[in-house]
Amino acid sequence: MQNSVSSRLAEATAPEVAQTIYAPPMRGFDAAALERMCALNEAHALMLAERGLIARDTAEAILRGIAQLRAEGPEAIDLDPQFEDSYFAFENRLGQVIGRPAAGWLHIGRSRNDIGSTIDRMTTREWCLHLLAQLNVARQACLEAAGRHADTVMPGYTHLQPAQPITFGYYLANVARGMEREYDRVAAVYPRADDCALGSAAFAGTSFPIDRDMTASLLGFGNIATPGLDAVASRDFVTELLWAVTSCQVLLSRVAQDLYTFTTWEFGTLRFPDGVAGTSSIMPQKKNMLPLEFFRAEAGRSIGALAGALSAVKGSNYSIGLDSVREGLSDAWPVFQRFADALPLLRLVFETAEPDTDMLLARCSANFSTATDVADGLVREHGISFREAHHVVGRAVQMVIARGADASGLDVATLNAAAEAEIGRSFEIAEDTLRGWADPASAVASRVVTGGPAPAPMRDMLDGMTAKLAADAAALDTRQTHLRDSAHQLSERISAFLG
Amino acid sequence: MQNSVSSRLAEATAPEVAQTIYAPPMRGFDAAALERMCALNEAHALMLAERGLIARDTAEAILRGIAQLRAEGPEAIDLDPQFEDSYFAFENRLGQVIGRPAAGWLHIGRSRNDIGSTIDRMTTREWCLHLLAQLNVARQACLEAAGRHADTVMPGYTHLQPAQPITFGYYLANVARGMEREYDRVAAVYPRADDCALGSAAFAGTSFPIDRDMTASLLGFGNIATPGLDAVASRDFVTELLWAVTSCQVLLSRVAQDLYTFTTWEFGTLRFPDGVAGTSSIMPQKKNMLPLEFFRAEAGRSIGALAGALSAVKGSNYSIGLDSVREGLSDAWPVFQRFADALPLLRLVFETAEPDTDMLLARCSANFSTATDVADGLVREHGISFREAHHVVGRAVQMVIARGADASGLDVATLNAAAEAEIGRSFEIAEDTLRGWADPASAVASRVVTGGPAPAPMRDMLDGMTAKLAADAAALDTRQTHLRDSAHQLSERISAFLG
Amino acid sequence: MQNSVSSRLAEATAPEVAQTIYAPPMRGFDAAALERMCALNEAHALMLAERGLIARDTAEAILRGIAQLRAEGPEAIDLDPQFEDSYFAFENRLGQVIGRPAAGWLHIGRSRNDIGSTIDRMTTREWCLHLLAQLNVARQACLEAAGRHADTVMPGYTHLQPAQPITFGYYLANVARGMEREYDRVAAVYPRADDCALGSAAFAGTSFPIDRDMTASLLGFGNIATPGLDAVASRDFVTELLWAVTSCQVLLSRVAQDLYTFTTWEFGTLRFPDGVAGTSSIMPQKKNMLPLEFFRAEAGRSIGALAGALSAVKGSNYSIGLDSVREGLSDAWPVFQRFADALPLLRLVFETAEPDTDMLLARCSANFSTATDVADGLVREHGISFREAHHVVGRAVQMVIARGADASGLDVATLNAAAEAEIGRSFEIAEDTLRGWADPASAVASRVVTGGPAPAPMRDMLDGMTAKLAADAAALDTRQTHLRDSAHQLSERISAFLG
Amino acid sequence: MQNSVSSRLAEATAPEVAQTIYAPPMRGFDAAALERMCALNEAHALMLAERGLIARDTAEAILRGIAQLRAEGPEAIDLDPQFEDSYFAFENRLGQVIGRPAAGWLHIGRSRNDIGSTIDRMTTREWCLHLLAQLNVARQACLEAAGRHADTVMPGYTHLQPAQPITFGYYLANVARGMEREYDRVAAVYPRADDCALGSAAFAGTSFPIDRDMTASLLGFGNIATPGLDAVASRDFVTELLWAVTSCQVLLSRVAQDLYTFTTWEFGTLRFPDGVAGTSSIMPQKKNMLPLEFFRAEAGRSIGALAGALSAVKGSNYSIGLDSVREGLSDAWPVFQRFADALPLLRLVFETAEPDTDMLLARCSANFSTATDVADGLVREHGISFREAHHVVGRAVQMVIARGADASGLDVATLNAAAEAEIGRSFEIAEDTLRGWADPASAVASRVVTGGPAPAPMRDMLDGMTAKLAADAAALDTRQTHLRDSAHQLSERISAFLG
Repeated sequence: MQNSVSSRLAEATAPEVAQTIYAPPMRGFDAAALERMCALNEAHALMLAERGLIARDTAEAILRGIAQLRAEGPEAIDLDPQFEDSYFAFENRLGQVIGRPAAGWLHIGRSRNDIGSTIDRMTTREWCLHLLAQLNVARQACLEAAGRHADTVMPGYTHLQPAQPITFGYYLANVARGMEREYDRVAAVYPRADDCALGSAAFAGTSFPIDRDMTASLLGFGNIATPGLDAVASRDFVTELLWAVTSCQVLLSRVAQDLYTFTTWEFGTLRFPDGVAGTSSIMPQKKNMLPLEFFRAEAGRSIGALAGALSAVKGSNYSIGLDSVREGLSDAWPVFQRFADALPLLRLVFETAEPDTDMLLARCSANFSTATDVADGLVREHGISFREAHHVVGRAVQMVIARGADASGLDVATLNAAAEAEIGRSFEIAEDTLRGWADPASAVASRVVTGGPAPAPMRDMLDGMTAKLAADAAALDTRQTHLRDSAHQLSERISAFLG
Repeated sequence: MQNSVSSRLAEATAPEVAQTIYAPPMRGFDAAALERMCALNEAHALMLAERGLIARDTAEAILRGIAQLRAEGPEAIDLDPQFEDSYFAFENRLGQVIGRPAAGWLHIGRSRNDIGSTIDRMTTREWCLHLLAQLNVARQACLEAAGRHADTVMPGYTHLQPAQPITFGYYLANVARGMEREYDRVAAVYPRADDCALGSAAFAGTSFPIDRDMTASLLGFGNIATPGLDAVASRDFVTELLWAVTSCQVLLSRVAQDLYTFTTWEFGTLRFPDGVAGTSSIMPQKKNMLPLEFFRAEAGRSIGALAGALSAVKGSNYSIGLDSVREGLSDAWPVFQRFADALPLLRLVFETAEPDTDMLLARCSANFSTATDVADGLVREHGISFREAHHVVGRAVQMVIARGADASGLDVATLNAAAEAEIGRSFEIAEDTLRGWADPASAVASRVVTGGPAPAPMRDMLDGMTAKLAADAAALDTRQTHLRDSAHQLSERISAFLG
Repeated sequence: MQNSVSSRLAEATAPEVAQTIYAPPMRGFDAAALERMCALNEAHALMLAERGLIARDTAEAILRGIAQLRAEGPEAIDLDPQFEDSYFAFENRLGQVIGRPAAGWLHIGRSRNDIGSTIDRMTTREWCLHLLAQLNVARQACLEAAGRHADTVMPGYTHLQPAQPITFGYYLANVARGMEREYDRVAAVYPRADDCALGSAAFAGTSFPIDRDMTASLLGFGNIATPGLDAVASRDFVTELLWAVTSCQVLLSRVAQDLYTFTTWEFGTLRFPDGVAGTSSIMPQKKNMLPLEFFRAEAGRSIGALAGALSAVKGSNYSIGLDSVREGLSDAWPVFQRFADALPLLRLVFETAEPDTDMLLARCSANFSTATDVADGLVREHGISFREAHHVVGRAVQMVIARGADASGLDVATLNAAAEAEIGRSFEIAEDTLRGWADPASAVASRVVTGGPAPAPMRDMLDGMTAKLAADAAALDTRQTHLRDSAHQLSERISAFLG
Repeated sequence: MQNSVSSRLAEATAPEVAQTIYAPPMRGFDAAALERMCALNEAHALMLAERGLIARDTAEAILRGIAQLRAEGPEAIDLDPQFEDSYFAFENRLGQVIGRPAAGWLHIGRSRNDIGSTIDRMTTREWCLHLLAQLNVARQACLEAAGRHADTVMPGYTHLQPAQPITFGYYLANVARGMEREYDRVAAVYPRADDCALGSAAFAGTSFPIDRDMTASLLGFGNIATPGLDAVASRDFVTELLWAVTSCQVLLSRVAQDLYTFTTWEFGTLRFPDGVAGTSSIMPQKKNMLPLEFFRAEAGRSIGALAGALSAVKGSNYSIGLDSVREGLSDAWPVFQRFADALPLLRLVFETAEPDTDMLLARCSANFSTATDVADGLVREHGISFREAHHVVGRAVQMVIARGADASGLDVATLNAAAEAEIGRSFEIAEDTLRGWADPASAVASRVVTGGPAPAPMRDMLDGMTAKLAADAAALDTRQTHLRDSAHQLSERISAFLG
């Protein structure tokens, strides 16, 4: 038996090859994939006709045939792996519908290589836009939560030990800033996928006088990709999107780790509704924060997909190869889908996280998180250097803890005892003054420096981030509109052509 | 609405949680998964009954119910993600079939945690046995090919430059040795998965006087896993199998890279049938060795899955968590499947690779690959040190190449000119002697050292590897038989119990 | 200028090549590397002499020269990167010491390829033994701590929420079990590195009648590696050790994450001495658990080194190449060193971790961690199914929490109200009985199942693990002794030879 | 003994902690690191003085002290790990030089957290600029080589099988385009590192009225980073640079793989000078292309470093931690160094690669790489569809190969025999016409499509890329100049302050 798609090969593809290599990617040829395939072929056929490279009636037959294939849906296409891939299966169905001779004219001046690269670019553009839209929803929810909780004083941590008081709103403003950068990374991928590869053919271009600008424009591309080998052999727009998604997931894994810790029985400072929790089949009391563990897991999986895709591409020849442009990237696409699924979950987390305001404040008062403010007070009002003040307060904290007390036990006497031990002097400080330095809310309010947690800088930052979000959303809308308009114009050009 | 599986939680699971987290793994609950679930529950129910922990009629109802669930297949089970996972969906169906009161007795002295760990162990055991069997088929094909091509002299390479003549059989014997080690790595995972976790319950054991040895034995386990936290919170048998598979795929990617290179137009020394090749939609002459690229791609993907799984588990708490025992490992299982698919393809490669004997020999004669043998000849018969001989021959090669010749141009005059230049003397050598030293077949035949490519050591190695393969196959058969016997005994114990 | 090591090449190595490629690995040629190089060359020289392949006086000169090189230390060797690597630098120095003609005889029947592979095997053996010894020290400390804290009742967690009471000793026993498996993984690498590659030469063996068994034995190897290509082109013993170390570090990262969490202000249940903490330059009160973060970081770095090494090797030709046997593995060795440094830190962690016994017990009493025991009590003494009991207790916990109480608020009235709501009945239970079920210490004591936390199974497990540790230590000692004895015998054979 | 840097901690740091954790990063405190530390502290001290937060004479003492520390070099600083890190070691030395009381004033309104983040940003900026400059040198060499070899016809490959003729210049133009994108990725990191973190203090800002704009400006930063937690806890500019470098190295590994293949004996179409090669200790004829293997190895190592850094950061709390901001990134910096070393090697490769023009052309004529052009000719001049033409030519190639001929055997008779078999007709074609279609040089010349290899589009692309390179170089120069100017201004401000 002859090969199904080549007269060069005298044998049918071995079943081990067909089932193991060709069948799996063909299983993913769904309605969205068919739509991309139809649009691409319509643009190509229209261009061939306008350039006079195929006869008008052939072009009409092809365009009507594609319309029928679109209407039938992917189920009508025989995805026999002997066809090697979805393009040949598509061409085969087109031949069934309009006759092989007519269908045979479609493949002038091109190759599966530039088709595949172009379709991957179209798909990547779609993923970018979808993920950017979802990211914006999550950013919005984060900024709103930051505003809602701007006055909720809470302990800030370093190394997960109480460090200095901030607010929960401030914490979330930091998250929003991080997400802003991640948004920019995802957005930066779009223009790199926005070069149309059609016309590169196998990699060496074509001698047919095709019009690359026309096909690119009909498919909504901003530019054309040159030279042809780079255009078909590089999928760095996919690995870059994978990188950007992974970077964002690593950020989210860290945020999730914080919130997860805050929801423990022992921290007890953050609550989620029962609907955002899992339970146990044996332990009746259980309320487990699985959704937060999910973000950690996803970050790990994305890191793996990134390492795997890069490993697969690494060392391949700089040309079309299974590993460099297809199999090697096949774990990237599901990551985009899972990320798209995770972002609504993230929105839900921001919307439903409920801090325990009283407990958070009580913690700040007990856990020495204003020790820096006490040191700062000594510097400001008693003229000792910061390092001296640091040692004095450090010693005082040690003394308080040694007698089993918490920060409420840090009184002037202790401070002075520490000062004597450290720097051989003591201070005239009223207990109220010391208590004022050590007050968490005052400490937060005093940090008016740009970027600080006090109300004024917080307002500035939230305003700035809200404005950036609006600008990002507008730019995104422009891109979405352009793609919709391009699709519309393609459809109209075809209608006009078919009369 | 109340939570579907817990009275502790006052709300239904949020749709974002149910769809994103619970639904995807439940979609994989296929017939094999149901079979494992049934067997595990049968063993547990039988044990509870024998220990008097549930009433006889309850046990009978449960066992008959499970039999019905097995017969119905997974389609009969409502995989609503509000059930959180497949166990609760299974218990729900059991309740529908035998009544909730009876079904409610089944979960004594256990948890989804030890169930999940035990099922992962059963699955891992099955993968081990399946992969080992497939590996043996590939090893066998490799050893047979090594025997078939034991006399086919070919250039051996280092840094992909001609180095010394070997035979294609010798090359394959090396591959077989590498696969032998990989087999051992996969086989080493089996005993680590062969400890039964049942009885660990959530992680802290149970106060019910259950019989862990009995359930373990009924499910064919060799041992029981202790203590309980380690038993349920570690899936290092999965990551270890993933490691072993990845290690093997890295080996295969290297072998594939060699064979791929040999099949190029320029090397032209290895051919595969047309059925083991792909083609092009544009270039009519194309015969592409996609199957060999496949092994490179798979190695990359496995490396990624390994890094991803380890990243997901890393830093998780040492206890049950979504990332540490489930989501984090979810990219491992498909790797096992793809490896199982790749091994028959590998067998096909070994069976169908056809070296071009004449061209290989011609290459060896032209490409200076016996330069070492000439140097060795000078050492052995003319009493100069190896380093001197190395320099003399190196210089001679340089001279031959400089005049545009290949190794056939290396004559005594040139050698002596080089010797004069390097060490200030020349040698009395007959052209025939020099030609003898430089003869590729003689060079191969002379390497009788243990591990060398000459016929005698080759025979020893192939015999040794064949014997090891037979021993491995026998040990594998013992394991397969044990699992089959255990399943049979479980079935008979149930029949006996039900009368 | 001619190449420094080859007469085939007419130019000196370009500085970009010499500095970027050759120089970095040569910088690592330290005293230990020199010792391995000396021993290997001594064994080879002795064998050549015994086989009559070099003259006795040449052998004597070589052996005396090597002795001098060892005595001089690595500083005496000119590590000019024009020599390409440390072997040629070594041979150059030997030539300076004993004259080039004599030194030139040493390289008979071998290549840098089998030298390099053999040295990597010697190094890997040393790392295995060193890491195993360090692991045993850490295991010992862990088991001792487990014994010390066997009665310290603490909450066990799943998903970091209170789950069931265990003891701190039980927790540590789980860690010890995990480390036991990791020990086995590291130990399994030793035999794979214990095959001597000498005699493989470049990869194709040699025609000189060398004695591979003799050199292997003199260097303490258990076997010889065959065939030659696999022997020189595979470093899977290095990647396997890297895997084993990474697996262990992932385990330790999880344990560290637990202990880290326990030392937070909010958990407050575990303390370390001030000497095992870091501090802050600004916040005077800070005591940060950096050492525990270290284990998380190291796990990440090891995962990267593993992925990187496998990526480098992946797709390389199955032969000697820079990426496949040297550069590609160069990030593995530092991981071994860092792991060796981390293990004493781990021992310190086990030795100094101090749980707060009172607070741990109080937590267990408050956090509903005995809810399962209450459900078990209902099953055992009141004849309802476990699922019913689970729902009753789950509802009761919800009620208690709704009124702002902790587990001390779970009384019979509440339980019965929940029972009425869930299953339409109530129970005759004395408050004391309920309190007994809910008592954490009783709950622990009742879990006498094999693998459980009660004293009896704990004792069994600790005894078993202690016995396994002793056996492992004995086997390790046997290996260490064998290597020492082999080195001693080599030295004596040389003395005897030199008279 | 008290802790060296904190009065809160009552003990010296344990040696296991000091040696394992603190010592290694301190060993990297070299002259460049000291310079950054000096500049940062100068800017801070100057700002404190201008804001009146420290006395003028204190500021003068500090500034003179820093000048002395810079002059002394890093050797004068006691890098005792008991100081925890280089900042405290620096402060200690400053105290030795100007007295502890004065030095103690320097740390007002800041923390090691914002210092560390700022220094990492300064370092990242420097790496960006250095790597961009080196990348431009390599791009220039690549473009020049592309121009030099624009007429060298060679076979283009897909799947490493002859595909269509291109030119070596065209191949290199593709590489240059790929490098253009990689340049853009590296360049995109700069602005993300160009936000100054100073003023964020520990993460919560400070209540001292510092001037963040002033310090940022003095250090040449374009912006300030807000809010403070994100500013100190995120190092995504480092991971992004690591990503960008890795992406570029993956590209280079593919190019290296091509060139490596072309330099084999069997391809024989590309030569490098002897100085760009390695050799063998045993095989006298060896000329090995190690430098090309190097790029493959580096790509693998970078992939590992990226996966490792992301794994280390993943799941850490979103705050300062050892793994999230220091240890976890410690494998990134050496990757930048190695990449900086590799780029001059890459330039050397482009400069010295010498294609064998005659052999390349001969290959194109023999290897059927113009089969597509023959098919195109049939379409264009004989009115059959492309698919028919593809089958006809495919069959014809099969027939020619079957009789053992190469492409010179593809004559009109064979073509017509194939046409009869495939489509039941034959064509009137002159042998010369067929020969014209099949001529490699004509085939290249005919591909005038945008992005094609013909002279006109090649010139356009090279011109475009040359212009882009010039623009990139100019933008880079602007950045370099800005940093130099900023350093100059800081120095002048200090001189002015000190009078």
